[in-house]
Amino acid sequence: MPVNLAPPDAARIKPVPGVELGFAEAGIRKAGRRDLMLMRLAPGSRVAGVFTQNSFAAAPVAVCRGHLMAGEAIRGLVVNAGNANCGTGDDGVAAALRCCEVAAQLIGCSISQMLPFSTGVILEPLPVAKIEAALPAAFATLAADRWTDAASAIMTTDTVAKAASRTVAIDGVPVTVTGIAKGVGMLEPNMATMLAYVATDAVVAQDTLQRMVREVADVSFNRVTVDGDTSTNDSFVLIATGQAAIAEVIEAEPRRYEALKAVVAEVAQQLAQSIARDGEGATKFITIAVDGALDEAEALRVARSIGNSPLVKTALFASDPNLGRLLMAIGNARVPALDTSLLDLYLSAGDDTVQVIESGRRAAAYREEDGVRVMKPSEITIRVTLGRGAARTVVWTCDFSYDYVKINAEYRT
Amino acid sequence: MPVNLAPPDAARIKPVPGVELGFAEAGIRKAGRRDLMLMRLAPGSRVAGVFTQNSFAAAPVAVCRGHLMAGEAIRGLVVNAGNANCGTGDDGVAAALRCCEVAAQLIGCSISQMLPFSTGVILEPLPVAKIEAALPAAFATLAADRWTDAASAIMTTDTVAKAASRTVAIDGVPVTVTGIAKGVGMLEPNMATMLAYVATDAVVAQDTLQRMVREVADVSFNRVTVDGDTSTNDSFVLIATGQAAIAEVIEAEPRRYEALKAVVAEVAQQLAQSIARDGEGATKFITIAVDGALDEAEALRVARSIGNSPLVKTALFASDPNLGRLLMAIGNARVPALDTSLLDLYLSAGDDTVQVIESGRRAAAYREEDGVRVMKPSEITIRVTLGRGAARTVVWTCDFSYDYVKINAEYRT
Repeated sequence: MPVNLAPPDAARIKPVPGVELGFAEAGIRKAGRRDLMLMRLAPGSRVAGVFTQNSFAAAPVAVCRGHLMAGEAIRGLVVNAGNANCGTGDDGVAAALRCCEVAAQLIGCSISQMLPFSTGVILEPLPVAKIEAALPAAFATLAADRWTDAASAIMTTDTVAKAASRTVAIDGVPVTVTGIAKGVGMLEPNMATMLAYVATDAVVAQDTLQRMVREVADVSFNRVTVDGDTSTNDSFVLIATGQAAIAEVIEAEPRRYEALKAVVAEVAQQLAQSIARDGEGATKFITIAVDGALDEAEALRVARSIGNSPLVKTALFASDPNLGRLLMAIGNARVPALDTSLLDLYLSAGDDTVQVIESGRRAAAYREEDGVRVMKPSEITIRVTLGRGAARTVVWTCDFSYDYVKINAEYRT
Repeated sequence: MPVNLAPPDAARIKPVPGVELGFAEAGIRKAGRRDLMLMRLAPGSRVAGVFTQNSFAAAPVAVCRGHLMAGEAIRGLVVNAGNANCGTGDDGVAAALRCCEVAAQLIGCSISQMLPFSTGVILEPLPVAKIEAALPAAFATLAADRWTDAASAIMTTDTVAKAASRTVAIDGVPVTVTGIAKGVGMLEPNMATMLAYVATDAVVAQDTLQRMVREVADVSFNRVTVDGDTSTNDSFVLIATGQAAIAEVIEAEPRRYEALKAVVAEVAQQLAQSIARDGEGATKFITIAVDGALDEAEALRVARSIGNSPLVKTALFASDPNLGRLLMAIGNARVPALDTSLLDLYLSAGDDTVQVIESGRRAAAYREEDGVRVMKPSEITIRVTLGRGAARTVVWTCDFSYDYVKINAEYRT
């Protein structure tokens, strides 16, 4: 059950001029479910992406990097769920290219103008023939208002499709930013989440778009962790179709750049939080806020050490204020020369805030019943103050339940 | 249920001349269970230790470091289970010193000749009065043949007491090495396991003993992981009572040093493996062997990435050959410039070996039924060959079951 996360309301997910989406049932892993998504981009669109840092980056990731590096105008994306096309060697690259080829023929562009993506089981050959056979059906459904359908076609263990949409005025002209994402396990993105696509009709210079995708990833998908396992297929792609009647957004004009980036980041953060809310087996959505750090990297190390600790996550699942585990996890972040006597820690749920640790030890006013009360709700914030500096960060995660084990012990069966 | 781990046979755990052990029920956390252990060492004993690297090292760890640094002859150890005396500030240090004081009065030595240890719940005050009250009872039971009783008195979520014993001839004289350990969760030691004590009657120079404890920790307790969470109280202490009629073992005589170290390492490895066999919720004992690495640190990073991956561990629990997860975990070790096309991976159980990955992709001869078969048994070895160099390592771990969640969601209740 996702934590306070409803399926997206298709009426509120705005089309992005220049983007059309289609879907199909290719039967890649299971019959009778959507597992193929096709996206067509208008000529003139610009695309930038960030990808997994896993050494076993999947074949489609390698192809995406190559096609983006080549600098040809990207005209489409082809995405399959059910099979990750990873650990598949040269055959995997050939399979990804074949998907591009068939999609390119339908769209009317060259192979290197397509970007391929896969998500699902690793170490099994991609069933290319099934994808080839289903691509015409996906092509036939292409339409501008199919974002939520597209979101449902890239799901694996996700229980809810994930989409978000905003508008912002640039030069007084309304610009749309809409995105979709999937991914609920094998998830501690270190470039981007498993698969996320955000598009805008803004006009954005190519190098500016590349900078924006990195900066947005760092404040959104790179701040989520479900289980600390970075996927082999993580990809986050930012598309600017250039259909809006505005001047090009360039880095040299920081005000306009920041205005657009802020909205892209809002969409990306909503998608990223949706991923944690739908984390495998999640019963709680946890925000971990660390401040008082010397630099952001240090704050992030502390937040991730808390967010990835199985002992902390099982205590959150049980609503058990076994709060020594938080202290253990902070201590494990290996912050050099951490003065634990400067450390404070608070738990809050809504307006209810309880100080648990004060100057490195149990807060004098802390009572077990306060801990029990504040850990009950489904949304909890853990705030840590290191007392060393001014840097801060926020990470989103979920708890660790019986269902996480169940889902992952039985994933393939 | 521990994996192929029977309670120690007291008759096979040999006394170490110069060491006496006692125990008591102090009622620290629960009534009616052993939770206090006292060890008395003969005059002339030498003691060396390695301790947790967690920034929140517990109060007793700080006191141990101080007393060992001071260089006074250690005459005794006082160990309680049920409360970790961690996150307790100056009061915690005072409490640990008070335990030393009471034990020192009984043994007849100074406070700084005692080493205190605690294990259990973090962030709660140590109930010193209960320990004070029970220490005379522990003192009254002091005897040389109480190693297994002592092992049972330091358990927390352990289901089986852990003890091991060996003898070795040094200069033709039989020397005994006997040890006990505890710890089954919050466990990825990075100096030593939660609590482990190994004693020998060999005569060992102090600096040699300190070197030996580090070297042995690196090939035993530092090679175990249950959940990747390093405890705040990890301590591994090596005691040499000097009662054997041999010349002093010194580093300058490598042959004698290595002969003794090998046996100390055997005892420590057996204890370390016992910890993984009794890992919280464990149903399988997993050996992860990585070779072909450029250096040992790199091999260890790969082995730990596998051993700590919740996705790998849940697949092992399910006996599901979802082997892409192994590839994902290897890729997450962030080995610089890893050429995945040189990587091979084998699973084995007993004499049955199955090659799963060959040159970075699924082995041509691999069949799902082979994977299913080799993953069924309760003891499995995962062997990874990186194809980069000659360095290797071995790590021991366990799987990740419903019971891990159950044990840790309900630990305090």
